[in-house]
Amino acid sequence: MAKPVQEQLIKEAQEHLDSLTKPIGSLGMLEAIAVKMSTITGQVKPALPGKKRVYVFAGDHGVVVEGVSAYPADVTTAMVANFLAGGAAVNVFARHTDTEVLVVDAGVASDLKPAPGLVILKVEKGTRNFTQGPAMTRQEAERSLVYGKELAAQAVEDGVKLLVVGDMGIGNTTTATAVSVAFGFGINDVLDIGTGIDQEGLKKKKETVLKAVGLNKPDPSDPIDVLTKVGSYCFGEIAGLILAAAENGIPVVLDGFPTTAAALVAWKIDPKSVDYLFAGHLSAVKGHRILLETMGLEPILNLKMRLGEGTGGVLATFIIEAAIKMACEMATFEEATISRGNEKDIK
Amino acid sequence: MAKPVQEQLIKEAQEHLDSLTKPIGSLGMLEAIAVKMSTITGQVKPALPGKKRVYVFAGDHGVVVEGVSAYPADVTTAMVANFLAGGAAVNVFARHTDTEVLVVDAGVASDLKPAPGLVILKVEKGTRNFTQGPAMTRQEAERSLVYGKELAAQAVEDGVKLLVVGDMGIGNTTTATAVSVAFGFGINDVLDIGTGIDQEGLKKKKETVLKAVGLNKPDPSDPIDVLTKVGSYCFGEIAGLILAAAENGIPVVLDGFPTTAAALVAWKIDPKSVDYLFAGHLSAVKGHRILLETMGLEPILNLKMRLGEGTGGVLATFIIEAAIKMACEMATFEEATISRGNEKDIK
Repeated sequence: MAKPVQEQLIKEAQEHLDSLTKPIGSLGMLEAIAVKMSTITGQVKPALPGKKRVYVFAGDHGVVVEGVSAYPADVTTAMVANFLAGGAAVNVFARHTDTEVLVVDAGVASDLKPAPGLVILKVEKGTRNFTQGPAMTRQEAERSLVYGKELAAQAVEDGVKLLVVGDMGIGNTTTATAVSVAFGFGINDVLDIGTGIDQEGLKKKKETVLKAVGLNKPDPSDPIDVLTKVGSYCFGEIAGLILAAAENGIPVVLDGFPTTAAALVAWKIDPKSVDYLFAGHLSAVKGHRILLETMGLEPILNLKMRLGEGTGGVLATFIIEAAIKMACEMATFEEATISRGNEKDIK
Repeated sequence: MAKPVQEQLIKEAQEHLDSLTKPIGSLGMLEAIAVKMSTITGQVKPALPGKKRVYVFAGDHGVVVEGVSAYPADVTTAMVANFLAGGAAVNVFARHTDTEVLVVDAGVASDLKPAPGLVILKVEKGTRNFTQGPAMTRQEAERSLVYGKELAAQAVEDGVKLLVVGDMGIGNTTTATAVSVAFGFGINDVLDIGTGIDQEGLKKKKETVLKAVGLNKPDPSDPIDVLTKVGSYCFGEIAGLILAAAENGIPVVLDGFPTTAAALVAWKIDPKSVDYLFAGHLSAVKGHRILLETMGLEPILNLKMRLGEGTGGVLATFIIEAAIKMACEMATFEEATISRGNEKDIK
């Protein structure tokens, strides 16, 4: 279970922010972020995370044989090599924000050679095509959760104070759509392209998801059943990581639609895990917003991105740090001997 | 006049972005920012700005005697001291983004002592109360534009490659509202609180603005007349800075509602100046969005901030740099030997 956050600090943290030399509430979401970090860290002036790490989960999705993506499945393997070589977007943004990148082989179809920066926690070589039966066995689903928890334990041991989750796998938005529908979201509220497919491709994606949910009948009250039947190894490891990070009091920044669908699995298992989650950005992929709203999360960035890999989450760490610095470094009205005026609290 | 940007580079720059290892268009606004920087710098892979500077314009507004703000006018002077001591929000975010802060006394009512980081370009000790007559003389308005141009020239000489404009002055959103209305925007489309005033205060602000515009009858086709009658020294200096930065090919990041109203003055004088403008963020102040839309600018951040000082603009420089690094550092599909798939261009 998630370590209880220090909700009693909310008032004190907000009072501290209100004492700083700015109109009350005028730093908007930065104030909300700072207060959340206060409840997580137990500090009115939260310490900067220092060590940040993004886990980029890579895996293959059996459903890709149905033709739901514009890219062939072997791109998953090629992109892992790109991550390890530092040439992908997430690498660029991780260097920009001083975030460590670790790539996780959660279930890539090919055999990956051990390499620096690669963590091999492969449940299986790609999930099964969930239009023909469950994506995985329940045992595999549970193993994926355990693997994710092992990653969180490693991060704690390494002194990482802020985690980002990203994912890469051809077919991942189809899986995210299926998980969302399995949990009761309407198909038309969450259906969208991931990469560039056309209207015919989108229709095929819709039929594929509906067929998968109809055939497998995942039980929405049993998140591990949803993960088993229409999820992926990546989703299981992300969910496990979130659950264990919350147990250890480590905040996790979500990226786009797939990582948020995975977070939904964690949230269904332990609703309190959301106390440690930040929504890094709002993806341009349609289903993302409703998933975030359901969990009560407000996206930090909104740059019309739809790339994945953790790109939006990594960029958002910069804003989280700005919020912390605001709480720690700004002068108070008293320190600066500035009149408070007669401002109304309009928050 | 603004130095013409290299529009012929748009296609080449976008083709370069489309060659990078990501789905086409999937980095959204970051791609638009990178392309704009290409047209400004003439480089498909734009150089990082390196030296960044925010000018925080401080000035007093005679209209404050009408009771339009929750804060007394002497807060302007006290906040200048706070900026110079490094304790304000803009200082925190400038350190976070490695941006130099220079405070400009454009028209503070009190005498400010020379200090490191303070540029004294005081047109006059505060504008006149524009509900009783013009805020300034036309000569003063022209002088404020010249002062702004001098600041841009200094920035060029200092090798600054990216400028941010911020402002601080009790009463600045009332002035921004008056300038907007003078240019033809509906009062109800731009009226909002700046800091925390209540409904009664808002009503007074509305009456004040309508009285000022009705009495002074600024000519919307003569931007310097608008500046003279219902503007401020800060707005004139910001407009002058933008015009001269555009002449010198230096991009400028706007902050919130007041700096954008000032940019409107520059844009009315030289519509091409907008080719060098970035909208750092969307302020929570109501009138901001319509001003940005009018100039065809899309805000980079949207964090419900309404502080001013350049806080939103400074934070946005981090995203602009991320966009540049994306264009410069990502591997291409060819370099990474990754299949392009059969993706449709859905931009």
